[in-house]
Amino acid sequence: MTRDDRIGLRHGAGGPAMRELVQSVFARNAGDAGGDSLGLAQLDDGAAVRVGERWLVYTTDAHVVKPIFFRGGDIGRLAVSGTVNDLAMMGATEPLGLACAIVLEEGFERTALLRIQDSIERACAEAGTAIHTGDTKVMGRGEVDGIVITTTGFGFADRIVRDDGLRPGDEILVTGTLGDHGFAVLAERHDLALHGELRSDVAPLNGLVARALAAGGETVVAMKDPTRGGVAGALCEMAAKSGVGVLLDEVSLPVRRAVRAASELLGIDVLHVANEGKALLGVRPQEAKRVLEALRAHPLGRDACRIGRCSDELPGRVVLDTGFGRRLVAESDGELLPRIC
Amino acid sequence: MTRDDRIGLRHGAGGPAMRELVQSVFARNAGDAGGDSLGLAQLDDGAAVRVGERWLVYTTDAHVVKPIFFRGGDIGRLAVSGTVNDLAMMGATEPLGLACAIVLEEGFERTALLRIQDSIERACAEAGTAIHTGDTKVMGRGEVDGIVITTTGFGFADRIVRDDGLRPGDEILVTGTLGDHGFAVLAERHDLALHGELRSDVAPLNGLVARALAAGGETVVAMKDPTRGGVAGALCEMAAKSGVGVLLDEVSLPVRRAVRAASELLGIDVLHVANEGKALLGVRPQEAKRVLEALRAHPLGRDACRIGRCSDELPGRVVLDTGFGRRLVAESDGELLPRIC
Repeated sequence: MTRDDRIGLRHGAGGPAMRELVQSVFARNAGDAGGDSLGLAQLDDGAAVRVGERWLVYTTDAHVVKPIFFRGGDIGRLAVSGTVNDLAMMGATEPLGLACAIVLEEGFERTALLRIQDSIERACAEAGTAIHTGDTKVMGRGEVDGIVITTTGFGFADRIVRDDGLRPGDEILVTGTLGDHGFAVLAERHDLALHGELRSDVAPLNGLVARALAAGGETVVAMKDPTRGGVAGALCEMAAKSGVGVLLDEVSLPVRRAVRAASELLGIDVLHVANEGKALLGVRPQEAKRVLEALRAHPLGRDACRIGRCSDELPGRVVLDTGFGRRLVAESDGELLPRIC
Repeated sequence: MTRDDRIGLRHGAGGPAMRELVQSVFARNAGDAGGDSLGLAQLDDGAAVRVGERWLVYTTDAHVVKPIFFRGGDIGRLAVSGTVNDLAMMGATEPLGLACAIVLEEGFERTALLRIQDSIERACAEAGTAIHTGDTKVMGRGEVDGIVITTTGFGFADRIVRDDGLRPGDEILVTGTLGDHGFAVLAERHDLALHGELRSDVAPLNGLVARALAAGGETVVAMKDPTRGGVAGALCEMAAKSGVGVLLDEVSLPVRRAVRAASELLGIDVLHVANEGKALLGVRPQEAKRVLEALRAHPLGRDACRIGRCSDELPGRVVLDTGFGRRLVAESDGELLPRIC
């Protein structure tokens, strides 16, 4: 049996191995869903179906983060934010409701569950939504590591924002600093000395995204949240789907000091690390400044900046301008960061 | 630390312990969702929100069945059917689409995953729906037992059928034989000799339910699928929520010979065992015969029959008339049947 006959950690890492798995197994029979819906074949963050004049957008995510509590958040806040953000990335910034299925290990502490539930409710309140239905399953001791939370959300959008709408000349904006979530979780897991300074950015972004869409309208042509696989993974996917090259300006990448230190210490490129409270936006050049100002006026977008630009060079590729030269940015296909979300 | 400070298997069994957990943790702050929606506070199989003249119904379920392949089905067919059936029980018999989040254990075989995916697609085709979006996570070896599949479904209903609409005089119908799923899984797990004759009933029921609703209209006042907790659990919940007593006629309960034998062998009451392709319907007396005929005309309802009647005696309780006397039917709060779905 070869390695590929069995699932590996990299199949859940959000990179090429996962895409191959989805394409060859889950979406292998998914045809084009037709003009009235977007489904698996598009491999976007969610699906959408026409309902009257609007689109009903929906998305689902399983959350297996380890540890379940970390600086800046926990698995409950992550579960709500991850789903709210996937909806927002498609243009549905007012979630109608969430469904939440929880799998628990026998022996899980009720106090921990209450703490997670509090966090779920707080994150829902921030996002202006609520859990309306759920399910609870219990597996025996040793059959699941603590808790798995799967959240599914849905909402209406007047216009679907895809992740393949970039064209040469478009500006790439990011709503804030990079790598905060991934390094906070790694620090917790490995008890790094930097621990105290690293803090996950996990947050629901629908309010922030609504501001950007209000400011930029249809000039906001692509959005994606750089979670698993980080900014590198998200931009490589957007570039490949859109058929444009993306030139990133390294000097302009917003990275906190502690994250930069952790990145050097662990030898992990911040571009490959998960964010859980950030969005990448592709905006037509004439409106980029206006959208950037709208982002910066929101508390979750204060550190927003322009980090790159699309071109017709090297279509499908992401290139980093380091100031000293240029290098290709590859997707990570790694097993470095399992259970980061 | 007392027993209740930690989660036990019974908290996932669909009975009183689970209800207490949901009420004291997940739904403790869930107010009445208001006239335009039904949510956690109703503790129904799903939630619903008004969209124009119709209701958008949604429901989620995590599936942890062990073993993942069993006679009559597998975890994939179960995941689709469970969600389609919860929608149907609320009156949404034409699912708009499903979302599917899969958590895999490192080392899981790709051939098994393909087999499950085939089964998911077949069950979707039977139900007239498709998986439109999903998520894949991988946990390390020993961190999850094989595979967990969480499915969420959406659909519109013109009228929500609740599980609390019974009143004295209503007839209770079941769409076919009892206990097939639970005993098939137990037989597989314990390698019972009866193995070959036991076969899960897992199937999407939306087509069958649509026939019943077309025949009975608003006289179909309550529906529930007797999954975890079995017919006893489902009827106790319906009786309690509706404030009526339910008198079951033991002689009329449809049970296959092999299931009866397994029930006696294992000492497990068939009324406590999970079904995954059956529905309980509460119907106003004048239309019960008409609905029953509609059920029997469908391949999945050939063994449908009337099994009981609602009264104003012992409101909230279920009583079994054995032919020799009467006994109360209690919900199981057991740990007998973990990971049955």
